Amino acid sequence: MTVAAISQHARRFVEGRLPDWVEPRWFSDKDELYRLLPEVEIGWFDGAGFGAMLDAPLHAQRLRWLNTFTAGVEAWPLEDLRKRGVIFTNGTGVNDIAVAEYVILGMLVLAKQYHEVVRAQDHSEWLPDAPGKIELNGTRALIVGAGAIGTRVAALLAPFEVHVTEVRRGAREGAIGADEWRDRLGEFDWVIVLVPATADTNGMFGEVEFAAMKQGASILNFARGSVLDQPALIAAVNLGHLGGAFLDVTDPEPLPSDHPLWKCENIRISQHLSGRSQTALFARASQRFLENLSRWEKGEALLGTVDLDLGY
Amino acid sequence: MTVAAISQHARRFVEGRLPDWVEPRWFSDKDELYRLLPEVEIGWFDGAGFGAMLDAPLHAQRLRWLNTFTAGVEAWPLEDLRKRGVIFTNGTGVNDIAVAEYVILGMLVLAKQYHEVVRAQDHSEWLPDAPGKIELNGTRALIVGAGAIGTRVAALLAPFEVHVTEVRRGAREGAIGADEWRDRLGEFDWVIVLVPATADTNGMFGEVEFAAMKQGASILNFARGSVLDQPALIAAVNLGHLGGAFLDVTDPEPLPSDHPLWKCENIRISQHLSGRSQTALFARASQRFLENLSRWEKGEALLGTVDLDLGY
Repeated sequence: MTVAAISQHARRFVEGRLPDWVEPRWFSDKDELYRLLPEVEIGWFDGAGFGAMLDAPLHAQRLRWLNTFTAGVEAWPLEDLRKRGVIFTNGTGVNDIAVAEYVILGMLVLAKQYHEVVRAQDHSEWLPDAPGKIELNGTRALIVGAGAIGTRVAALLAPFEVHVTEVRRGAREGAIGADEWRDRLGEFDWVIVLVPATADTNGMFGEVEFAAMKQGASILNFARGSVLDQPALIAAVNLGHLGGAFLDVTDPEPLPSDHPLWKCENIRISQHLSGRSQTALFARASQRFLENLSRWEKGEALLGTVDLDLGY
Repeated sequence: MTVAAISQHARRFVEGRLPDWVEPRWFSDKDELYRLLPEVEIGWFDGAGFGAMLDAPLHAQRLRWLNTFTAGVEAWPLEDLRKRGVIFTNGTGVNDIAVAEYVILGMLVLAKQYHEVVRAQDHSEWLPDAPGKIELNGTRALIVGAGAIGTRVAALLAPFEVHVTEVRRGAREGAIGADEWRDRLGEFDWVIVLVPATADTNGMFGEVEFAAMKQGASILNFARGSVLDQPALIAAVNLGHLGGAFLDVTDPEPLPSDHPLWKCENIRISQHLSGRSQTALFARASQRFLENLSRWEKGEALLGTVDLDLGY
């Protein structure tokens, strides 16, 4: 029997469907999880609290496979997992729908300046004209980091007649390579950032990149806060060179109440809510987990395996 | 020569491209327009102010063709135009893009409860969880009034994997007839209202229809305020039977500052801004006008001709 630690939140989706070689141990909180850790071989620690979850592998020395439904994995002890040979699967594909829908919301909010419409209603005020007059139709978008979410965003934008260019490691139809996009930043009305947080992507967008963007263009960050140089972004937006920004992620999170990002009128902050704007998280992640248990048994490659050398 | 009254706003898009039998007379405001009216045979009165424009045909007794870029035409003197045999063309197709994009914005705002995110930022507050957790993906939408805008909305929703049913006069694949939709209201998560304002559609959605809708479903009105019974809507939303509403149009407009609609938390009001959320209105309308001049010369049917018996 292989001991697996699984949250009570997932129990109703997996109980009775687990292979017979799996011995599930359910936990409701950090304390229950930590009592289980010395025995755990398969660990799915979502549901124990974010900080508790990240440290749990260090206390699970029998761990062979670590699973999570989050997509960004930079906060996990990746080097330790790599040295110990632990397989690590993440939530690629589990959050795609919710995040991709939120990207479209972000673009439309910036285009129509919808936050001003919300405020007008709160003041019982009928606006005399539209505060935002951009149509997505006919604009050009660059998607930087074209994984599962980026592919879905591109599909959602197609009938809007947004011309989408994706940045991919390997060149292919409609995509440009990682060495080309900086030279072409001036072509796009939208830059949508979806890269993983790694040493390579830290500060990927700074003063130089913002200056190279088209006058009035907007940037959306659904990756990690560290990917953008935030002071440089505030400067580029306040100068009016950039039209606006929509940040689902910031550095740090949560953003302290006195942080200057909050008060920058043309920067919209959605507080890392995009992936949580769904009710199906544990259901979808459970389905993936069950599929991966079946693959594990057959010795097949698991879905969503993190490359511990690349860090995503 | 045929005398045509055209706004200065359209001048740069049509001057030099008009057929030689058209004698353009430009106007910048109501007074200039009204001086021209006794001579006018072709009248495009947008740009003179809304009220002035609606009365202008009554002072243009030589008028043979009236043009406008608005879509809803119920406020024009339709009966008078009909009796005098004036051809009337509207802006069907000119506002489609802007309005259809706003419909998607409205659905996403309701799904993610984005107005709460705007307020949280205004208070420098990091929300602990997503205020709205609906994914559009997998939901079902009914489009009532499937003209040019409805067709575009359906196309935009396709990659979201929203299952769309359109109500059309003539039944066809994926559409249901005008006598069927009431019985099927309970099937839909979204009801999107895009019908023209006529005697038939006045109060089309009232207590009975709201009660027949699915628990937690939302209604979006981009037609005219008169199509919904607003007190019944407020009751259905406040009781919690409906999840919410997104009203681009209200009755009356502008909504007085003490109107109860403003303060209904789950009713979002976008102040008839959807069609104005674009910069291309006169450009697009001018292109249509030039095309129609060419058709007029050849004796062909004009694009966007209003049926003065039906009223749209």
